[in-house]
Formats: sequence, C-alpha cells, structure tokens
Amino acid sequence: MTTTEPPEPPPATPKAETPKAETPAAETPAAAVRASDTVRLARAYLSRVAEPYPGALAAFVAKVGPVEAAARVRSGEISPTVASQTSARRAEERAEADLAAIAKLGGRLVVPEDEEWPRWPLLALENIAARRCGGEPLALWVRGPHFLADVVDKAVAVVGSRASTAYGEHVAAEFAYGLALTGTTVVSGAAYGIDGAAHRGALHAGGMTIAVLACGADTAYPGGHQGLLAKIALEGLIVSEYPPGVMPARHRFLTRNRLIAALSGGTVVVEAGRRSGAKNTAAITLALGRPLMVVPGPVTSASSAGCHELLRDGRAVSVTSIAEIVESTGRFGDDLATKPAEKDSDLGAPQGEAMRVYEALGKRCGLSAEVVSVESGVPLERVRALLPELELAGLALRLDEGWQKLEPG
Amino acid sequence: MTTTEPPEPPPATPKAETPKAETPAAETPAAAVRASDTVRLARAYLSRVAEPYPGALAAFVAKVGPVEAAARVRSGEISPTVASQTSARRAEERAEADLAAIAKLGGRLVVPEDEEWPRWPLLALENIAARRCGGEPLALWVRGPHFLADVVDKAVAVVGSRASTAYGEHVAAEFAYGLALTGTTVVSGAAYGIDGAAHRGALHAGGMTIAVLACGADTAYPGGHQGLLAKIALEGLIVSEYPPGVMPARHRFLTRNRLIAALSGGTVVVEAGRRSGAKNTAAITLALGRPLMVVPGPVTSASSAGCHELLRDGRAVSVTSIAEIVESTGRFGDDLATKPAEKDSDLGAPQGEAMRVYEALGKRCGLSAEVVSVESGVPLERVRALLPELELAGLALRLDEGWQKLEPG
Repeated sequence: MTTTEPPEPPPATPKAETPKAETPAAETPAAAVRASDTVRLARAYLSRVAEPYPGALAAFVAKVGPVEAAARVRSGEISPTVASQTSARRAEERAEADLAAIAKLGGRLVVPEDEEWPRWPLLALENIAARRCGGEPLALWVRGPHFLADVVDKAVAVVGSRASTAYGEHVAAEFAYGLALTGTTVVSGAAYGIDGAAHRGALHAGGMTIAVLACGADTAYPGGHQGLLAKIALEGLIVSEYPPGVMPARHRFLTRNRLIAALSGGTVVVEAGRRSGAKNTAAITLALGRPLMVVPGPVTSASSAGCHELLRDGRAVSVTSIAEIVESTGRFGDDLATKPAEKDSDLGAPQGEAMRVYEALGKRCGLSAEVVSVESGVPLERVRALLPELELAGLALRLDEGWQKLEPG
Repeated sequence: MTTTEPPEPPPATPKAETPKAETPAAETPAAAVRASDTVRLARAYLSRVAEPYPGALAAFVAKVGPVEAAARVRSGEISPTVASQTSARRAEERAEADLAAIAKLGGRLVVPEDEEWPRWPLLALENIAARRCGGEPLALWVRGPHFLADVVDKAVAVVGSRASTAYGEHVAAEFAYGLALTGTTVVSGAAYGIDGAAHRGALHAGGMTIAVLACGADTAYPGGHQGLLAKIALEGLIVSEYPPGVMPARHRFLTRNRLIAALSGGTVVVEAGRRSGAKNTAAITLALGRPLMVVPGPVTSASSAGCHELLRDGRAVSVTSIAEIVESTGRFGDDLATKPAEKDSDLGAPQGEAMRVYEALGKRCGLSAEVVSVESGVPLERVRALLPELELAGLALRLDEGWQKLEPG
C-alpha cells in the first residue's frame, strides 16, 4: 500500500481473465469511452480523502470538476464544510498506489467520466429522500470481468440476515439461481447467511452476481467468505466505494447498503429479524422508489419477523417465486407472473342444481329420481333433466334400480 | 328422526348445562324476547322444505312472513320460482319432529324473531356482493350453552386447509388459544386440519368457539371429530342452517362457508392451498366487507400457497400474532398492535462522526487521536471532542498510549 513504484496505467478495457461461455453478462465494449488518467487519479485521491458519503465534497466536485477539486483540497482552498470532510486525510497521497494495487488484482477504478459508470441506476441516489443515505459515489473500485454499466441493466438485490435459517438460505440460493438463469444479475453484500447463499446460487447457475463491499475491494471480509469472494472476482464483480486496504466498519455497512439498493432494479429481503441490517437496505430501496419485495416465512421464525413487518405495513410486496420477482421488477407489459385464473370461482356456485343432484346420488347403490329430488331439494322435472347430463359427463351411472354416483376422472 | 312424540317446547332460555367460570361468553339473558311457537314451527318447516340458500323463498318469507309463507308453500299458492325451490320437499312435514330432535340434544331452533338471532352480523349477507353466496338464513339450528347473538359480538373466523401441516395446526391452535384469552369467539368449520386445531385451541383456553356445520347440528361430521364436536356442544356452540339428520354435501360446504364469514368480524386463513375451500370463505369475507387476514408460511409449502396468493394480490393483510389479528378486526381507536417504533432509524446515520470515531478505535491497543482522525476521516479537533464523550458513554478507554475501544454493555 505504501509502494512508490510508478502507477500502472489503468487497463484500456476491463480485463476479462476468465470469460465463461455461459456467463450472461454483456461483452466488454472494445472502445468504451474512458476518463483521462488525470481525472482518474484525482477521483482516486478524492475517494480516499473523505469518508463516504461526503456530501459537501461531492457538491464541490460536481461544481468545479474532480481535478480542480482534488487540487484545492490539497492546497486547502476550500469551504469550511468541505475542509471538515477532508482535513483529516488530505495529506494521504495514495492515488497512484491505490490504482496500482487494484490493477494488480485485475481490477480498476470506475469513475463517472467512464462509459462503464452505471449512470442511471446511481442517479436515483440524488433524489431528496435517498440523499439522506448518501448521494452518488465519487468513484467505484471494481474487480471482475464484466462491464459494470451493462450488468446492472437488469439486476435484483437479494439480501437478508446474517442470522439466517436453513429455510432462508435455501430460498435465497434457489431464487438467485433462478434469477441468474433468466439473465438477471444478483446483487448482494457478501455477508454470512442470506447474502452468501444468494451469491452462491447465482454462481451455481453460471450467472452474474455483484458483491458490494463495506471495505476495500481487495479485502476478503468476512474471512469465511474468502473463497466465495475470489470466485466472484473471477466470474462476477466486486464493487466498493472504499479504496484498497480500508477495513469494514459499522457505518460503512450502512453506506454500502445504499449502493446495493441503487445498483438493483429492486430488492428482495429473504429473511430479516426485526432489527436486521437488511431493513436498512429495504428502507433505502423505498427511498429510491424501487420495488421492495419480501419472502414470507413461518410466523414462528424470528428471522422472518422483519419481512412480515414490512409486509403488514404495506411497504413491501410478497414474493414466493422467481416469476413473481420478475413480475415485480420487470418492465411494464413484460414479465407478468402467470397464475391460475380462477379467482371468481372462489365465490363458488352453491346454488348449482346439477351439483346438488350429483351430491345426492348414492355411491354404492342406485337411487330413483324421486328420492334424488327430495334429497337434493331440486324439483323432480329438473332432476329428470339433469341426470342424463351427469351421465354424459361421466358423473352418474344409470342402473336398473336408479342412478348411482361416479367419481370424476 | 321419525319420532312421533309431541314436540318438546323449545326451552325458555338456552340451556347452560355446564357453565364454566372462565367462559367469557355473555350470560344468557333471563327474559330474552322469543318467537312464538307458531313462528318457530313455520320456520322449522321452511328450513327443511328448501335447500339453502333459497333466494325466492326467502324473499317470499320476507314479504308475507314465515307463517303465511309456510302455509302457502304447503298449499302450492306460490310463484313458479318459489315452487321450483320447494316442490321437491314440500310434503316433508317434519317441523315438530325436528324441533324435538334438537331439543333432545339440548339444542334449539333460533329464528330471526328471537332476540338470540345475530341480526347485525347476518344482515351483511344481504349486500349485493355477498348475496351471490346466499342471503340471511331462514333459521339456525343451534346447540350449546351460549346466547348466539352475544358471543358473535366479538368473533373471528380461523379457517384453513384440511391438508394442513404441523406448522399450520400449531399456529391455528396458538392463535385460537390467544384470541379466546382476549374474550374473542373463534368461529370455524370443524373440519380436519386447521379448523379442528382452531376449535381445540379455543377450548383449551377455556374460551368460546362456534362450529358451523355443513350438515345437521346433530351429525358428527367428520367422523374423527365426534369427540371434539361433543365438547363444543357442551362448552361452545354448534350452528347449522340444516335441520337434524341432513348429511354433508359439497355444495353445503360452500353455503356453510358464508355463515362462517358472516358470523365473524373477520377471517384468518391459516393455511390454504391454491384450490383450498378456505379461499371460498376468504372470498365471501371480502364480499361482506370484513377484514381478510392470512398467515404467511414457508414459500416452499404448498399449504401456504393460497395464503400468499391472497397476500400478493393485496386482498388480504398478513397477520403474524394475536395482537395483529386484534388490531385488524378491532374497533377504531382500540386494539392497536404495538411494535418497535423505530422505522425511521432504518435509514441509518452513516454520517455519524461519533460512530466513525468509535469504529476507528483499536480493540486491543490504544491509538492516538491523530491516528483515529485519519482512520475515521473525522477532523482532529472533532475527534478530540468526541473521544471524551465516548469515554463518558463507556465506549472508549483512555490509556497512556492513546484510546482503546470498549464494547457496549
């Protein structure tokens, strides 16, 4: 991290070391527009100088551009609010080293000036309700062989509790697997429990998954997910707002959650306790105006209590299948989940004379039309008309002594 | 059933053979207004002469009164539509025998002219949407030591699939038990599975439960619930639109379901498959304009698929506790379910400087304020101000070499 070797220039296009035939991700555009090295170095510096999300600094960058903003932060020609967000680290001159470190891992710094920047998804962070959780990031540290802007075009967050149950992990993996098969990118946070199951399900389908981290993109956190994160870096994408070497911290998870929500067209909370961090991602999803979905579970499970609370409050819709997730997040007119179209029949037809005649028939012996009439309460002449209809439908049998019931099928 | 002994007069007040101290049911009013014997005999005859629900006959009774209606049905001076509903059974003169049979079981025929008639709950059946399932019954055959009109004042239907799981039966019994403890009457259909578990839960709490049957109130159906029905007849109420001896039939379950919904202030569907009969009760509940509640369950369980479908369609609200059922069915202003009031906090406070300083502290060694400032990105002077605050809060420890993190609690 304290290396002084000259900066390796950022790769001309993101590297794709392990292209997988079945990976549904977009091809990396051969001639995608990329920011200048000066801009990238400036954003790399700004990315480390302030703890995300630094509202005043971001506004300053938006106003004067990243290169001038970086220069003025260094020289101190800034407003007191920008200074308060940058003074502690403004001497941290590690932009070149950080870019070299991420490049060494096959990664890159993606900046808003790049075509790879997921412009539209992240723009939603600038709305008033969402800004409370932080706006558009200054830059994103990315590892993996996919073009970020393309793979988030159709993406769903699948998140949940670390304190998950076997049921929740099963559902997370199944849903992620199915979503991946439909060409949907599965976004999650690489945590133990639901997050890990979601990433694994998508990878298992040979699909696309993005792990958004609350630490540097080079840092394997949590430790038990080192292997999983290595696989995601090879087959999916690892994304972080934090420069290499930054360790996770509680506030960084909250800041990170807004990126999970923003990079996704909707969020599925698979399991969440009443105080789960997944409820934070859920709240941001709503602030972004994106669909919030929850998976119901046993009411006896504390791990589903947060999901049920969101459901009862009317803040989330229930999803029980991949088709329902696709329907809830899909484009208008496409992606409607099919279901048995028999709603109206639920009211039943308790007055149906044919049904009453059918029910009145004997199972083991024939009954006369007169007896069937009394038993069913249907007038004799109607019974006489209906019995042959039931016979034709294969529901009644004409015997010498009368009519007998036949079971359907 | 073919007894010819003179009819035992209906009891002056419903019998209360086994008053239970803990039974929350209303006292039987000592001088409740009762219909005349003539009216009761007429309604008993009408109850058997037509299969419920006989719309034309009911309209005729409403117009000319039960005594004249019965006489004219007997004599045939009726419209063709009324005739079509009554001709098959109009010679069935069993009113006195039926009243004797129910009285022998400690029961009675409750008619709209009685004070015991649940007038307001049943009136909802006369609205246009609900009439499709049948209107107000002509009379109700009742067994059990409670005054029907009183015990349905605060009643909730707890229904569901016969093809239930251990989870569903557990929840049905728990909810019914808890509702009974709050003085709520649990209404159900005495079927295997969820219904049976609901009745048992209410009885176990020493509470009030009503079994609404699709057969005569004297008939133990299903057979395996003979003991349960006997207990309900002693401690709760058995209610049926069908005279003694009538056997269950498929259309009678649909007709019966409207009474379960109508006698209840709301319906909880605990488990229902996509084609469960409980969805019929659900549809009627909505037609009546009453709250429809469903219990979420594992999305992997076919027995919860019908519940989840109602939930996703927005036709039902989710209930996961007795408090939520009480809230959904309760009176305005009363009965609000409490829950952790921390919704807004879900959006988090990722900018909190104190939190960032706290997270930056070393767990095993002291760090200088300067190091903490760089690590947390919080300006040095703010770090210097915040560290003593954290110390006061018991979250930081001042050592010779600097500041160390303390875990809360």
